Amino acid sequence: MEYQVLTPALVAELETIVGPQHVLTAQRVEADVYADYGRDHTEDFHFAPDVVVRPANAEEVSAIVRLCYEHRIPVTPRGAGTGLSGGALPIHHGVLLSTERLNRILAIDERNLQATVEPGVVNEVFQNAVKEVGLFYPPDPASKGSCFLGGNLAHSSGGPKAVKYGTTRDYVLNLQVVLPTGDIIWTAANTLKNSTGYNLTQLMIGSEGTLGIITKVVFRLLPYPQHTILMLVPFRQEEQAAEAVSAVFRAGIIPSGMEFMEREAIAWSSDYLKIPLTLPEDILAHLLIELDGQDLEQLYKEAEQVYAVLEHYDVGEILLADNATQKDELWKIRRNIGNSVRYNSVYKEEDTVVPRAELPTLLKGVKAIGARYGFKSVCYGHAGDGNLHVNIIRGELTDEQWNVGLRQPISEIFELCVKLGGTISGEHGIGLVQKGYIGIALKETNLQLMRGIKQVFDPHGIMNPGKIF
Amino acid sequence: MEYQVLTPALVAELETIVGPQHVLTAQRVEADVYADYGRDHTEDFHFAPDVVVRPANAEEVSAIVRLCYEHRIPVTPRGAGTGLSGGALPIHHGVLLSTERLNRILAIDERNLQATVEPGVVNEVFQNAVKEVGLFYPPDPASKGSCFLGGNLAHSSGGPKAVKYGTTRDYVLNLQVVLPTGDIIWTAANTLKNSTGYNLTQLMIGSEGTLGIITKVVFRLLPYPQHTILMLVPFRQEEQAAEAVSAVFRAGIIPSGMEFMEREAIAWSSDYLKIPLTLPEDILAHLLIELDGQDLEQLYKEAEQVYAVLEHYDVGEILLADNATQKDELWKIRRNIGNSVRYNSVYKEEDTVVPRAELPTLLKGVKAIGARYGFKSVCYGHAGDGNLHVNIIRGELTDEQWNVGLRQPISEIFELCVKLGGTISGEHGIGLVQKGYIGIALKETNLQLMRGIKQVFDPHGIMNPGKIF
Repeated sequence: MEYQVLTPALVAELETIVGPQHVLTAQRVEADVYADYGRDHTEDFHFAPDVVVRPANAEEVSAIVRLCYEHRIPVTPRGAGTGLSGGALPIHHGVLLSTERLNRILAIDERNLQATVEPGVVNEVFQNAVKEVGLFYPPDPASKGSCFLGGNLAHSSGGPKAVKYGTTRDYVLNLQVVLPTGDIIWTAANTLKNSTGYNLTQLMIGSEGTLGIITKVVFRLLPYPQHTILMLVPFRQEEQAAEAVSAVFRAGIIPSGMEFMEREAIAWSSDYLKIPLTLPEDILAHLLIELDGQDLEQLYKEAEQVYAVLEHYDVGEILLADNATQKDELWKIRRNIGNSVRYNSVYKEEDTVVPRAELPTLLKGVKAIGARYGFKSVCYGHAGDGNLHVNIIRGELTDEQWNVGLRQPISEIFELCVKLGGTISGEHGIGLVQKGYIGIALKETNLQLMRGIKQVFDPHGIMNPGKIF
Repeated sequence: MEYQVLTPALVAELETIVGPQHVLTAQRVEADVYADYGRDHTEDFHFAPDVVVRPANAEEVSAIVRLCYEHRIPVTPRGAGTGLSGGALPIHHGVLLSTERLNRILAIDERNLQATVEPGVVNEVFQNAVKEVGLFYPPDPASKGSCFLGGNLAHSSGGPKAVKYGTTRDYVLNLQVVLPTGDIIWTAANTLKNSTGYNLTQLMIGSEGTLGIITKVVFRLLPYPQHTILMLVPFRQEEQAAEAVSAVFRAGIIPSGMEFMEREAIAWSSDYLKIPLTLPEDILAHLLIELDGQDLEQLYKEAEQVYAVLEHYDVGEILLADNATQKDELWKIRRNIGNSVRYNSVYKEEDTVVPRAELPTLLKGVKAIGARYGFKSVCYGHAGDGNLHVNIIRGELTDEQWNVGLRQPISEIFELCVKLGGTISGEHGIGLVQKGYIGIALKETNLQLMRGIKQVFDPHGIMNPGKIF
């Protein structure tokens, strides 16, 4: 695609749309504030936008996009910038459209167990708001304290509870979207079921901002589960931890969390948080297993069943967290693995995913590939979903090794995923950094269909260009 | 679109692909057998195909479709023909592609709680097969004893259990699809999570055979719930029955079934089945409420909570079905309402759907519209989902009244749905019969996007032409 340059006249038009104080340029704001808009949580990438625009509502988003569409200016939508695949990086410069001011919870409909929100609401803020009226919004990425719901929609984010409750896409009934032409549509209706035409809602979710900008979301909600039980289970063999995951499900239990952490993941995170944790020498991995429900007695029964399953494995002493503080600490350790890895080193995070029972094979394969190519990885993730986050640590690798040398081993990891019935991203998206590998997961015919769909929505290719394919 | 005529030379080519015994024409088979291929369960429609082709595998489907693509011959995919929107009717003649021989359960993967099946497997056959190994496939349309899984995918069919477990689309991980060009793709991977490119899986589901022919499906499964409790709750006021639905959810209970039946629905069905049922004069509607789970004691606790909610309504004596025979009879009555209505009269079935709490308003509105335009309707459906099946009875209506006169009142019913945040089909699809009303639910911009997508998949417009839009 050929893009045009953002002229001062166009910047003036943007100012008319959103007000001058919401059009930021490198000249107008402090350097580090501006620089932050050019980064997300992906490695150490930075791309400067020509201008940052902060609209307040769908009509302003529409006017901005329409202007850019007419003048062939790239538009990169951005939420909180917590993405791990570079989806929010303005690699073709142009307009960075921040959704930070689209941050209202518009309605919580207790009669219908639904809520209507804007995309700039922080995930945890929304969770807490609905919890106050006894309702439950399950998707909870590790970054829930800062990530926006809009970013969660862009990648269909999951999080620990996905194993029982599914990912973001399972809670969306209807979306208001500003198309790349500037037109505003609603994708569906506010109903639990819908068999009226093609499913544009699910097409938008996971499309990483390449098909339009979501400006309102209608979520379905559940009754809030009143009780949880949390267990930290230490394993002497990593593969046994991965194997036990399948066994729990086969016993008829669906945990609300089933997280795998190899020794270093949990050690780095507890160090980083300064939460003391005894880790016997022979423990190589942990499972963090959560059960939830409305009836505590029932949960204890289920916990006993889990214990019975675990008896068949070589486990250490199981820690049953029985108060809120202890539970919070354990979850905090789990959630901060990513941060602790980032604190230790630049890293590349691969979001591998396979059918649940193939996890031991994947883990073994990742380690073997690492050994062969001489890199270290820290692995953890949503074992119940077969979703393993492989963090490749930069450590002492040279620029050449880091930027070029890792391509082959990463390709081999992804090829292994596909061979096992899996794919290259479970919840982080393709964005910029996995783009080069998409051919491993998808055949050319699939990509042609996707490019065709992109062309239907975005004939000028202005919306988040350079992402996915 | 301009279509070509199916010449004897092309019929001969089809015979080469599938074998002569699997190419049926009006001349070769008995008239009533052939006629059946031109019908489904929608009103009394009939359209004769030029030829019925019965392939045995994806490769044969591909060869048939490729031939039709090259020669611009319409292809109408057909499952069991139990559809209620005319989706399987070959209205442009050409090839009717029956999936009846694609009827194998290829694998049940107990380690991963997954199964791979062909689209011609009967829903209930599949349910029973996975139940034998302790697994659960929840979607259960009323026609589960005869409908094919492929048809369920075409419309994302629901059924009573959708209220707790979602519809067909919530159980699909991956699809093998023969595109209208004849190319064969897999849409995704066999994983619970997938954030790798646009979601072609969900785009195919509910596309009513207009984007390709599904030839294999990978479903995710759940552990089978060991116990159920079933209650039949009689109400003296129809609207109270609809109101009670929301109240049960707000009490924190998610039933595995929450069915609404107005007096006549249950009376006609029990008469049709010759199952005696006492219906006191003052009872105007029923709710059939099912709870399921792994622990019977827990279910009784939940049942008590349901009773506590129902105390606030004017209900008759609640029937608690406590043995398998009684439960089967009650479900049989619910499932046969459609058949009993069909037995009594030709009817048009409108698959209205609204947010759950708007059901009383919808029901009242439907009856008011019926009174104003002089038609009778029998209403029942999945109240937990806000999905009300409105059966408009032909009775003594003239051809003119039936074919033309009902258009305005049906439009008014659909307009009411949309006004209440709902839409015009929850699970039956648009197909042929709701096509004229789609503009009520979807804006022209939405339809343009859908037509654009159709063009990407099917540039010659051969696949199930004349459906949806």
